[in-house]
Amino acid sequence: MQLGMVGLGRMGANIVRRIMRDGHTAVVYDVNEAPVRELVDEGAEFGTTDLAEFVSKLETPRVAWVMIPAGITGKVIDQLAELMAPGDIIIDGGNSRYHQDIERAKALAPKGIHYVDIGTSGGVFGLDRGYCLMIGGEREPVEHLDPLLKSIAPGVGTAERTPGRTGETSTAEEGYLHCGPAGAGHFVKMVHNGIEYGAMAAYAEGLNILHKADIGNRDSGDSSAEETPLENPEWYRYDLDVPEITEVWRRGSVVASWLLDLTAAALYAEPTLESFGGRVSDSGEGRWTVDAAIDEGVPAAVLTAALYSRFDSRGEALYANKVLSAMRKAFGGHHELPKA
Amino acid sequence: MQLGMVGLGRMGANIVRRIMRDGHTAVVYDVNEAPVRELVDEGAEFGTTDLAEFVSKLETPRVAWVMIPAGITGKVIDQLAELMAPGDIIIDGGNSRYHQDIERAKALAPKGIHYVDIGTSGGVFGLDRGYCLMIGGEREPVEHLDPLLKSIAPGVGTAERTPGRTGETSTAEEGYLHCGPAGAGHFVKMVHNGIEYGAMAAYAEGLNILHKADIGNRDSGDSSAEETPLENPEWYRYDLDVPEITEVWRRGSVVASWLLDLTAAALYAEPTLESFGGRVSDSGEGRWTVDAAIDEGVPAAVLTAALYSRFDSRGEALYANKVLSAMRKAFGGHHELPKA
Amino acid sequence: MQLGMVGLGRMGANIVRRIMRDGHTAVVYDVNEAPVRELVDEGAEFGTTDLAEFVSKLETPRVAWVMIPAGITGKVIDQLAELMAPGDIIIDGGNSRYHQDIERAKALAPKGIHYVDIGTSGGVFGLDRGYCLMIGGEREPVEHLDPLLKSIAPGVGTAERTPGRTGETSTAEEGYLHCGPAGAGHFVKMVHNGIEYGAMAAYAEGLNILHKADIGNRDSGDSSAEETPLENPEWYRYDLDVPEITEVWRRGSVVASWLLDLTAAALYAEPTLESFGGRVSDSGEGRWTVDAAIDEGVPAAVLTAALYSRFDSRGEALYANKVLSAMRKAFGGHHELPKA
Amino acid sequence: MQLGMVGLGRMGANIVRRIMRDGHTAVVYDVNEAPVRELVDEGAEFGTTDLAEFVSKLETPRVAWVMIPAGITGKVIDQLAELMAPGDIIIDGGNSRYHQDIERAKALAPKGIHYVDIGTSGGVFGLDRGYCLMIGGEREPVEHLDPLLKSIAPGVGTAERTPGRTGETSTAEEGYLHCGPAGAGHFVKMVHNGIEYGAMAAYAEGLNILHKADIGNRDSGDSSAEETPLENPEWYRYDLDVPEITEVWRRGSVVASWLLDLTAAALYAEPTLESFGGRVSDSGEGRWTVDAAIDEGVPAAVLTAALYSRFDSRGEALYANKVLSAMRKAFGGHHELPKA
Repeated sequence: MQLGMVGLGRMGANIVRRIMRDGHTAVVYDVNEAPVRELVDEGAEFGTTDLAEFVSKLETPRVAWVMIPAGITGKVIDQLAELMAPGDIIIDGGNSRYHQDIERAKALAPKGIHYVDIGTSGGVFGLDRGYCLMIGGEREPVEHLDPLLKSIAPGVGTAERTPGRTGETSTAEEGYLHCGPAGAGHFVKMVHNGIEYGAMAAYAEGLNILHKADIGNRDSGDSSAEETPLENPEWYRYDLDVPEITEVWRRGSVVASWLLDLTAAALYAEPTLESFGGRVSDSGEGRWTVDAAIDEGVPAAVLTAALYSRFDSRGEALYANKVLSAMRKAFGGHHELPKA
Repeated sequence: MQLGMVGLGRMGANIVRRIMRDGHTAVVYDVNEAPVRELVDEGAEFGTTDLAEFVSKLETPRVAWVMIPAGITGKVIDQLAELMAPGDIIIDGGNSRYHQDIERAKALAPKGIHYVDIGTSGGVFGLDRGYCLMIGGEREPVEHLDPLLKSIAPGVGTAERTPGRTGETSTAEEGYLHCGPAGAGHFVKMVHNGIEYGAMAAYAEGLNILHKADIGNRDSGDSSAEETPLENPEWYRYDLDVPEITEVWRRGSVVASWLLDLTAAALYAEPTLESFGGRVSDSGEGRWTVDAAIDEGVPAAVLTAALYSRFDSRGEALYANKVLSAMRKAFGGHHELPKA
Repeated sequence: MQLGMVGLGRMGANIVRRIMRDGHTAVVYDVNEAPVRELVDEGAEFGTTDLAEFVSKLETPRVAWVMIPAGITGKVIDQLAELMAPGDIIIDGGNSRYHQDIERAKALAPKGIHYVDIGTSGGVFGLDRGYCLMIGGEREPVEHLDPLLKSIAPGVGTAERTPGRTGETSTAEEGYLHCGPAGAGHFVKMVHNGIEYGAMAAYAEGLNILHKADIGNRDSGDSSAEETPLENPEWYRYDLDVPEITEVWRRGSVVASWLLDLTAAALYAEPTLESFGGRVSDSGEGRWTVDAAIDEGVPAAVLTAALYSRFDSRGEALYANKVLSAMRKAFGGHHELPKA
Repeated sequence: MQLGMVGLGRMGANIVRRIMRDGHTAVVYDVNEAPVRELVDEGAEFGTTDLAEFVSKLETPRVAWVMIPAGITGKVIDQLAELMAPGDIIIDGGNSRYHQDIERAKALAPKGIHYVDIGTSGGVFGLDRGYCLMIGGEREPVEHLDPLLKSIAPGVGTAERTPGRTGETSTAEEGYLHCGPAGAGHFVKMVHNGIEYGAMAAYAEGLNILHKADIGNRDSGDSSAEETPLENPEWYRYDLDVPEITEVWRRGSVVASWLLDLTAAALYAEPTLESFGGRVSDSGEGRWTVDAAIDEGVPAAVLTAALYSRFDSRGEALYANKVLSAMRKAFGGHHELPKA
């Protein structure tokens, strides 16, 4: 089956590679020539930096998978829609907010163009490990895409079968799932990332507690002004090997996970983590997950705490902290000055 | 009535001043001569830097109020107990953890010495405003202390009477309360401070949101790598006058409070808060409040978040944040470096 | 000066009463006749249930203060705008989200009608205590409204002057403040309410810790399956009088506040709080404050925890909790059943 | 090599089975005869309900692994110590708080008895999957135990080798790790469980957001009094299949983990989770992890939120919620009654 790919960044290019490995064909487009040429060299049937030419090379019904930054996705989808015909399918495989999927599907419907949103997880490992695909849209176009989705997804063999499941496998067991109408794919991917934030923070906080388990040995010296003295220093005299601890948890423990695998590898490679500055970015999904929780009126304390810890890591609480110091000075008389 | 005061720091000295204003007498002790001389000049009947002499000047039953740093309180109480007699009263008016009160009362009981713990709130304003007193211990010695407690407390006239209360005033309406047996005073004071942390953080976070309400006007430039772009910059184009806002809330609003009064004054005096470094200390009470909540199995999300925000302000999440960056690099490929 | 009031619920009616006390005149409108008649009886110069008639009675430039539920505010403002003329002023004094203010001001601008948003705090006490007013809009119409705003606000005498302030009082000291352009009033009021959530939760959590300080005396019996046994039961044997504790904090303590005054009164009136079900509502402002924090990328852990505790109080975590139990059963073998 | 096992509950018995599979021998003890007989039938060399007899059958240096409830562990260890000789080894493989390990090791040292604490993760799956072992104690006895530990642990083949690791495997790669001196094993296990709480809650919260993604379709009817109306109901009209979503995430996604495997299995077996009551227990480790974070002064917002959500699930916020309702009534006039 043929796939048209718009955007040959790492994820777009690797999805193309993965389907070609399975015998599918690909027409590829990018604004830059280099990645286009590279994919053609690797076997894509046609490549171009001209969007109209790209569309003209697609077999009908056309399948155009858009894999570009969220900021320009809308514009490119509009351009594609101008060039496409009823029955064609546009896929947004990027990180759009699902609200936009709902609007785009509505806007494309009168033209007879199908819109499918696919939340794609897998990161830099997707080429080999496969991509987990969360899909929103109408049933027919999603079914039409099935052969491609099956090739992109990891495949049932990449995990042990869930106990209790018997008979034919569901697509979820292959690693792709039609979650619901327009936006459902990005909605589920959004919550997936929200969970990812929470799980990451759970490990990070726990490792920090291990890391500082030697506080009973430290000279409390200067810190005495800022912290209450430790009541039981004899409880905090461990010099723990955090990299080895993450390794030991990989086997047999309740917290074994792919994130832990990655953490163990990162800590093995650089035990001190000294190359990192400690300022942690956040993309939209973590924020949008919290927005959704609030709209739904459900508590999401863990996911939100994980998000805020990233804001904090970037110094965004500074003004609030100065307000606290100002209050403390006002009623307690102590002035918490900047460090000399 | 006579009060013996051990420790003439700001709070100890001001408590002595407050009771002398009301016609009580004071015997005072400190390790340093200067504050002793100062208080004697102001009318204390006797002052000394010798603890045994201090005890010898007290009328029986002796009343010794210990107002010194928590770290040395235990030792001084032991010394006092050696010098005192059955029926005497030792008051710990400092910031001991209430566990210690329970132990000390038990240790002093066989000697017939009464132990009273008094959590004291009021800060630098206590001399004029009075001190709010939360008291633990046996009924008899607490009743014996009543004339002194009444003088130290703010007095019923310092707030409007609570609607519904009629007839004779309770001591709570004067600003002092016998809360229960040994430790109850410091327990209630501990939770008081826990609430204080939470309320302070509520203001600080809210003012931070006001402070950054101009983000839609800022050049997103560099931050684009760290944050998702603002979806609706037109919603964040306010240049708000935070000092004036804290002032306007002082009258008629639901968040009017003494803490807000202090905040408004601090922001009026230094609108930019530039003299503060943003590292916020924590004393023991906020931590102990959370420990108590966990022991009791009751959720204390707000009080704990307030405590953690202080830890965060001192950079204590740094290692955790590096772990997050290491994970993000592992699955996403982006390396969050230290700032150049 | 004349004020037109649209909506005679408690707050609308009391604002009218407050300005009339100061010698201003009022034209009033409501969909129901009873409150209209009541206000006319109390001295309003004209009352009607017909919006066109209401507008016709206003002196130019007309001032129409809309004080109705947020859900219908937009529609009524549209109707008013049809009936009004360039130079007139429409005030939204309700609880609109500030996004709507920005849109409405933009929509009314071409007609020359001024739009002013006023966040109003004060609740059931506003008539006597005055209303704290947070105002957004253009400078000229806000200045025009000054005499009315001054009458509605509490007045400078209702709190001690902030130390350091000298000379002429600012309007903030009267209890009203022009915060910025359209939406600024409701933005500041929104954050005000967010702070209110946080401060309320701080007290509530602290009182809960006091309330359960007797856990060491309770028969742990049944709870043993759900909780780890208490390590030090002797630390939790206090039977604390929570109503009296809230009373004692009202004088001299750092947590004295109007909210505490109300809490002390409520606990005095009903010490057990048995008439309350424990399900706590939330209006929009707490949610919108968190949305704003997230958009701005600033941490608001306390305000968010306060919001989530309300969601939790309504059972909204039930499904999440069942998921936790399902996990626990899977790896630990224990089935957490519904209560018999 | 010979292992003595004290306590034949599920974990004790399965550890015995696992070492016997590997050719080691076992002497077993339990207060109940049935499990003793069962293990002897399965090949244990000796079994008894008499502790002295148990000790007498052990080869020197004796190895006694205590695997009994934390509440009685201390007493049994004391009894064992009376019966044992210098050079013998007592292992606490249960869930003791690490403080106790520190004390016990100190108490046993003068007798020449070695104390080793082993945090054991694996739950009901340990027999087949192996147990992850986190070990505290002196180097020599831990090295002496190596053959047994290797048999109990999962083994290096149960996970792919961490990229970058070459040459000989470390014991961490086998699934067991000597973490440090007395208490280090239980300390690391404690934090492990703290992380487990956080990760579990991350999934649970996320699935709850998915579960309620249909709120835009629900009749808001009754809830209108408690919640602000949904601004964009069209964003919440998804009827998501949560069991299938957990399945799809098992392959290729960033949140793949053993906990997710278990969740997918549980949701497949009972999609509605109706057999669960929603009250979630907590054992000590989650609490102790937070205590440690607070002692160390490091923020642990996610781990703490996870703990509090369990307290909340058991109704422990009820009093706090009533306080909130009482405040709301006081300033807003609305009485939040119990449900009829």
